[in-house]
Amino acid sequence: MQHYIFTLAIAVRDYELDSEGIVNNAHYLHYLEHTRHAWVKSRGCSFAHMAAQGIVPVVSRIEIDYKSPLRSGDIIDSRLWVERRGVRCLFHQDIYNQATGQLVVRAVVSIVTLVGGQLSRSEELWQQLGLGNEQ
Amino acid sequence: MQHYIFTLAIAVRDYELDSEGIVNNAHYLHYLEHTRHAWVKSRGCSFAHMAAQGIVPVVSRIEIDYKSPLRSGDIIDSRLWVERRGVRCLFHQDIYNQATGQLVVRAVVSIVTLVGGQLSRSEELWQQLGLGNEQ
Amino acid sequence: MQHYIFTLAIAVRDYELDSEGIVNNAHYLHYLEHTRHAWVKSRGCSFAHMAAQGIVPVVSRIEIDYKSPLRSGDIIDSRLWVERRGVRCLFHQDIYNQATGQLVVRAVVSIVTLVGGQLSRSEELWQQLGLGNEQ
Amino acid sequence: MQHYIFTLAIAVRDYELDSEGIVNNAHYLHYLEHTRHAWVKSRGCSFAHMAAQGIVPVVSRIEIDYKSPLRSGDIIDSRLWVERRGVRCLFHQDIYNQATGQLVVRAVVSIVTLVGGQLSRSEELWQQLGLGNEQ
Repeated sequence: MQHYIFTLAIAVRDYELDSEGIVNNAHYLHYLEHTRHAWVKSRGCSFAHMAAQGIVPVVSRIEIDYKSPLRSGDIIDSRLWVERRGVRCLFHQDIYNQATGQLVVRAVVSIVTLVGGQLSRSEELWQQLGLGNEQ
Repeated sequence: MQHYIFTLAIAVRDYELDSEGIVNNAHYLHYLEHTRHAWVKSRGCSFAHMAAQGIVPVVSRIEIDYKSPLRSGDIIDSRLWVERRGVRCLFHQDIYNQATGQLVVRAVVSIVTLVGGQLSRSEELWQQLGLGNEQ
Repeated sequence: MQHYIFTLAIAVRDYELDSEGIVNNAHYLHYLEHTRHAWVKSRGCSFAHMAAQGIVPVVSRIEIDYKSPLRSGDIIDSRLWVERRGVRCLFHQDIYNQATGQLVVRAVVSIVTLVGGQLSRSEELWQQLGLGNEQ
Repeated sequence: MQHYIFTLAIAVRDYELDSEGIVNNAHYLHYLEHTRHAWVKSRGCSFAHMAAQGIVPVVSRIEIDYKSPLRSGDIIDSRLWVERRGVRCLFHQDIYNQATGQLVVRAVVSIVTLVGGQLSRSEELWQQLGLGNEQ
């Protein structure tokens, strides 16, 4: 049983629908990215601020399971929790249909951190996010 | 001096930024479409509902002036008012930076309506939107 | 050592770059989808044709490893081979930088097939694709 | 009768279709931008190269008429010619259906040029593009 640490509500926009009237699979990666960025901002941090210090988080792997489709007018609750594993930060990101509570997407996004162009153990990212003593 | 009849707040999403760190010009058309659809919905109507009756609004022309750029973290107020002119419905759509009040984009979107595949004078669209007695 | 059965060359478009000047992670899912659709078409089939017969392939899971970034002007060779495993069709899709031969993305896309709204064992999809006696 | 100076063939990608099975209006701005960038590159120039010299072309206005829709499988010929008018460069950009020759979109894209952050008369852009003596 996971403890999400952040939830962002996002409204489906009709241009995200494909010719079958459901959200195209690629747009979920946009929702997930937007959620991560909103979470980072909620921690008082930003990717631009990190980049200025030579700290560059990079998506290295995404696993995403599509559980149920989204349609016009749907609103999602996009939730996440984070975990360090080796050099990677794992963003566990689940999307729920706000009206029904149904699971829409379950994803794990692996982030590695380049510091000065070199792969780091993500301590820098962790500290930027104010998670220094956690995990 | 225009009287907007609808305003939708929209948050810029970072994936909408281009390599110069500002929102790419095409995404504004997404904001404008999303605003029109939200307004239609607020009138108790929907494009799916209209399509089921053979009423299909089609974008025939867009004029858009880019006044000031949007960046990461910006929130916009996307406003509109509508007007009938000949066979067309004109959506006057202006986007403002919510924090500064600065005009971001000024656009006029022309919509024509196909009814049963034929160009109509948009009375059907106007009625669907509950604007029957308005001009 | 895999034997790809299809390759599609795709040029990076500048609007696919993010604010760091590299292709945004979501666009790779577009490249992968475009490649699958082009392959299906090369088999003399189409998703519209299948849908008309009540055969609807659905993406159920994507695993994608980002190996090296793409930049303005890059052209990719997007390759695939397919495999049946249980009810799923697995699309093994790898993207290479055409100029350097470097691996850009390695992905596995799981497709399930709905026939008349029910999960099938994908025989229908396999036959539509003219792969009836293979595998 | 216009004399186009550049043509780029672009294949419609299925994810660009909306829920009515036609290309969404915003994607045409992507086609137009991609064509401009390809043309600039064909002149031996690039936006990155210009930016490095403090020359930044900016889209200030777009007028676009949608004449006929695009569907799955369509290929377009995206053509352009350019003109200077005051401080603006006007890109006249027309898109044709390659198979039928039918006009799909007619657009005029106004570009202004910032040099060192100041609005210029676009001589710098014109020269970068090797159009120094042309009008």
